[in-house]
Amino acid sequence: MAADTPARVAIVMGSQSDWPTMRCAADVLDELGVAYDARIVSAHRTPDRLHSFGKGAADEGFHVVIAGAGGAAHLPGMIAALTHLPVLGVPVQSKALSGLDSLMSIVQMPAGVPTGTLAIGEAGATNAGILAASILALSNENIAERLKAYRAARSEAVAERPAD
Amino acid sequence: MAADTPARVAIVMGSQSDWPTMRCAADVLDELGVAYDARIVSAHRTPDRLHSFGKGAADEGFHVVIAGAGGAAHLPGMIAALTHLPVLGVPVQSKALSGLDSLMSIVQMPAGVPTGTLAIGEAGATNAGILAASILALSNENIAERLKAYRAARSEAVAERPAD
Amino acid sequence: MAADTPARVAIVMGSQSDWPTMRCAADVLDELGVAYDARIVSAHRTPDRLHSFGKGAADEGFHVVIAGAGGAAHLPGMIAALTHLPVLGVPVQSKALSGLDSLMSIVQMPAGVPTGTLAIGEAGATNAGILAASILALSNENIAERLKAYRAARSEAVAERPAD
Amino acid sequence: MAADTPARVAIVMGSQSDWPTMRCAADVLDELGVAYDARIVSAHRTPDRLHSFGKGAADEGFHVVIAGAGGAAHLPGMIAALTHLPVLGVPVQSKALSGLDSLMSIVQMPAGVPTGTLAIGEAGATNAGILAASILALSNENIAERLKAYRAARSEAVAERPAD
Amino acid sequence: MAADTPARVAIVMGSQSDWPTMRCAADVLDELGVAYDARIVSAHRTPDRLHSFGKGAADEGFHVVIAGAGGAAHLPGMIAALTHLPVLGVPVQSKALSGLDSLMSIVQMPAGVPTGTLAIGEAGATNAGILAASILALSNENIAERLKAYRAARSEAVAERPAD
Amino acid sequence: MAADTPARVAIVMGSQSDWPTMRCAADVLDELGVAYDARIVSAHRTPDRLHSFGKGAADEGFHVVIAGAGGAAHLPGMIAALTHLPVLGVPVQSKALSGLDSLMSIVQMPAGVPTGTLAIGEAGATNAGILAASILALSNENIAERLKAYRAARSEAVAERPAD
Amino acid sequence: MAADTPARVAIVMGSQSDWPTMRCAADVLDELGVAYDARIVSAHRTPDRLHSFGKGAADEGFHVVIAGAGGAAHLPGMIAALTHLPVLGVPVQSKALSGLDSLMSIVQMPAGVPTGTLAIGEAGATNAGILAASILALSNENIAERLKAYRAARSEAVAERPAD
Amino acid sequence: MAADTPARVAIVMGSQSDWPTMRCAADVLDELGVAYDARIVSAHRTPDRLHSFGKGAADEGFHVVIAGAGGAAHLPGMIAALTHLPVLGVPVQSKALSGLDSLMSIVQMPAGVPTGTLAIGEAGATNAGILAASILALSNENIAERLKAYRAARSEAVAERPAD
Repeated sequence: MAADTPARVAIVMGSQSDWPTMRCAADVLDELGVAYDARIVSAHRTPDRLHSFGKGAADEGFHVVIAGAGGAAHLPGMIAALTHLPVLGVPVQSKALSGLDSLMSIVQMPAGVPTGTLAIGEAGATNAGILAASILALSNENIAERLKAYRAARSEAVAERPAD
Repeated sequence: MAADTPARVAIVMGSQSDWPTMRCAADVLDELGVAYDARIVSAHRTPDRLHSFGKGAADEGFHVVIAGAGGAAHLPGMIAALTHLPVLGVPVQSKALSGLDSLMSIVQMPAGVPTGTLAIGEAGATNAGILAASILALSNENIAERLKAYRAARSEAVAERPAD
Repeated sequence: MAADTPARVAIVMGSQSDWPTMRCAADVLDELGVAYDARIVSAHRTPDRLHSFGKGAADEGFHVVIAGAGGAAHLPGMIAALTHLPVLGVPVQSKALSGLDSLMSIVQMPAGVPTGTLAIGEAGATNAGILAASILALSNENIAERLKAYRAARSEAVAERPAD
Repeated sequence: MAADTPARVAIVMGSQSDWPTMRCAADVLDELGVAYDARIVSAHRTPDRLHSFGKGAADEGFHVVIAGAGGAAHLPGMIAALTHLPVLGVPVQSKALSGLDSLMSIVQMPAGVPTGTLAIGEAGATNAGILAASILALSNENIAERLKAYRAARSEAVAERPAD
Repeated sequence: MAADTPARVAIVMGSQSDWPTMRCAADVLDELGVAYDARIVSAHRTPDRLHSFGKGAADEGFHVVIAGAGGAAHLPGMIAALTHLPVLGVPVQSKALSGLDSLMSIVQMPAGVPTGTLAIGEAGATNAGILAASILALSNENIAERLKAYRAARSEAVAERPAD
Repeated sequence: MAADTPARVAIVMGSQSDWPTMRCAADVLDELGVAYDARIVSAHRTPDRLHSFGKGAADEGFHVVIAGAGGAAHLPGMIAALTHLPVLGVPVQSKALSGLDSLMSIVQMPAGVPTGTLAIGEAGATNAGILAASILALSNENIAERLKAYRAARSEAVAERPAD
Repeated sequence: MAADTPARVAIVMGSQSDWPTMRCAADVLDELGVAYDARIVSAHRTPDRLHSFGKGAADEGFHVVIAGAGGAAHLPGMIAALTHLPVLGVPVQSKALSGLDSLMSIVQMPAGVPTGTLAIGEAGATNAGILAASILALSNENIAERLKAYRAARSEAVAERPAD
Repeated sequence: MAADTPARVAIVMGSQSDWPTMRCAADVLDELGVAYDARIVSAHRTPDRLHSFGKGAADEGFHVVIAGAGGAAHLPGMIAALTHLPVLGVPVQSKALSGLDSLMSIVQMPAGVPTGTLAIGEAGATNAGILAASILALSNENIAERLKAYRAARSEAVAERPAD
């Protein structure tokens, strides 16, 4: 679906290896007709890029930032430190600790700098996209309608009984 | 500070015992001049109230719902199932498991129904208030200004060196 | 074995993907000659269906509800909030956290609204079926006899020594 | 409230130190007019008492067994191995691991021998009492009525708004 | 190696499925020339067998019992409740929780009834065999010599540098 | 009770701060009339003392070593690496992680070098004493008799019903 | 002891509330005669200060950075992203999760940007000071001598036997 | 790249099976032109080798020791007890507990004997190599230059956007 606004959502991730997870955010935003810009911003390997992205995110026209990272996942919280925009964090599933480390590193932010954290892995990325859309929907009736339709369709798709 | 809009934020909690935590969300919203309505809605003891609150939240004029609960914390996720509004979840610190159960129950939502989850306990409640304000700030310049000032003041308050 | 009562047990689950687990409950109830009705009721995608199922479960003639779900698993607890019937919860094994999140979300219910929780995964689903049968057996001698026979057969099947 | 049946519920616990927790089960059964018998049966210190209690529980007239223990909590599962009655397990909060060990030891039963497990600590004990009552209520209209009244009263007691 | 005593070690396990793990205990005892008897004793499916095995273990001539089980692993602790012999527990790796549940259920015994617990899985089973041998070696010089030789050989087998 | 053998049990601990825990091992050995020698051997602060203690333990006449330590608890495993005697490990409860770190560091030994691990904290120390006694009892009838009496007394002390 | 070099160690912490923990690093450096500079640098509240501190740490003459933070602890890893100096991380004990979140957030860094992580809490802060001194000691004979003396004194202070 | 100093870094590991992990440390040191010596030193199987390695590491000319081990991982901490050199610990991913046991056993050292701990598994081994290089770089300009180039190259390799 063609989006009817400029990109209001930034999807950022720590590395290329996070894309199979974060693509789920992109996919649901496509489905909801919400434009986004997907970028790689590594808190640890490109701290300058992080700093300038975070400081400039509002001026670039973004309204919401979705940030995904794994392990000692500092990206969502550091962006939240650099911008007043709402930041949504996606804990990418890590190898040894299955994303429990990612979750702790993203959700346990100190008072003053919030990240709205979603579930570990693909479900979380999808939900970050939906939550971003619900935020934009507060001032965009088209997105609101598409979001309602999306959720209604998913409700209706639930079968009454399990199939073997 | 007197708020300059009707209550756009609902703060709901599972029981009176959650109020010492959730009051932190109310306090920061007061500080940011954002009107809110604080209510008790128990997913388990008042499921009808939950159902009608969730279904009617948008029509009541709320833009964001902050929901806090502890243990098998179903309130944030169930409200998210009943409304298209953004729902922010606060895991209240529980007695035996220190809020790890609350966190799991709130953040690990399946694809389709998001809750933006904050840290366990008071820091999380404060941050839910700030995140709600940052969402409202997208379309309210006054809140945006107050939020920037709030954060700037907190930055400036950080001393250069630790005091004994 | 043909069941000798109408369906007294409801087996509900959050999605089709839970069926490979929950089928174990159905299988053991088949083996014990206990009639059941298996349904999909998603707390998050079909909250209205959840509400009406929970409220009407007793009137439909059910005596016990077995509910399985994974991740932020709200289904068992929310049904328990809506009915006075005994509710047994099965934590379905989740991808990232292996069902630890499911277990926490189901078992850590607040005082007042119980879910009798079984083990994570297939063993738990089988045991939910057996526990449901043991409840029905309190007032149904046929089920009691079959349950005793089932358990005796399983005891006798335990070899004396391990086979290579 | 005077109970109108002989004791159908056994409340057993591993030691005197479990009584402050397990008393919550007794208290709610008192409140619901359900007779019970509270005993100490230590799986580890009195294995013969365990064996004879488990084997004789049905003949003593019990319909439900509530068993609470902490740490490597073997009491609920061992009783479940010895009787066909429904067994409800309460993980008592332990010192070092806060009841996580108790929970694992009670809930993770292998297929064939179920324990319906409640939350860690006092909430779990209260809920074991309520769940036992809901099982008895299937064939006792008085208990069913009192259970409905109990839960309705608790619902009505939930205030609309938090009090400072 | 032919053992030079009657079977002083009992290796018991909860089910046939534990044998691939527990066989490691048998293998190392074979290597050390210590006779053993391997049996299946299910705490949950064969509680009578458990009771008579535990009570009679000393009279059967055993000096040490190695017991392995998984999940809510009650076998080692229940045998320890029934005998004065040293009992060594092996937590078998479980499916959902990787043996963390098995470990908790075996090691966290209350004061008065010990189980000497080894590592989760095959390493633990091997080590149970070695520890049993070290106990028997206190009064059997042949076993002591073989144990020393076994350990010396293992030390000598450690290469100086890793090989690609 | 006066012990009737020279000290066959060494109780070693990493620091003075472990003594309130490890004293429970000493107390129960006193009660059972088993002589012991309690020493401080720090794996980290006194590695030479560790090395010479471990190498010489058998020659000093010890039959069993009980070793307690907390946090990254290396004492039990390192002694086990240095002696062929049975080594029993007691995880002392640590400040931040409640002894879970101690438990992991003691119980998860690689194949070849066993530590028989007891519960975290005082219960574990008491049980290490009892397990040591049960090992000595294999070749000392007096200890065997006292151990049986000790356990019988504890069984008889279990009241039938909880006291308010 | 008066330090014989300019401050080669920076001790930075996220907030004043970390000082009671981080002071242990300062104390041991004082004891070892190593000069340091203690500062507050909040990754989340003062991201610009973080950025300029990290970039300038080497030019300020520091050789080692000790960074302590709690919860979603991003300070050590972000400094490591900004400097080539060795960075040592101290997980400060957090309220709800006892520092497990701090530990995960600090230690689980991705390949390319290391933080040498110490234990949770005061022991970790002390050890960060000692590890920093051991690094400086590689090229400073005075520090090397004092470090050896410090450790020797601590070894000698270990009593032979526990005192009641 | 040919190293321009004698081997200043020792890479030690508990067994051959740790090499696939620890090789990552070797690889990055190769890349940075830092000479190293890789050895197998088992704390549990070769305690004498451990003792002499630890005592002699400084005299062998090493400046930094990287030690990797899994499970009850005692190698890094025991080396740290035996030398004044900086010791870096790598928790090797274990089978049952995914390296959480290794991490706890390495990082939770008591005050006085530090190990600078890296992430679980290969990322941690790579980072141990980099951290060792950053320590050597304090007094070796060539290594410092190569380290800066290595990190700059990694930063530049981060693409702007994810590729499908």
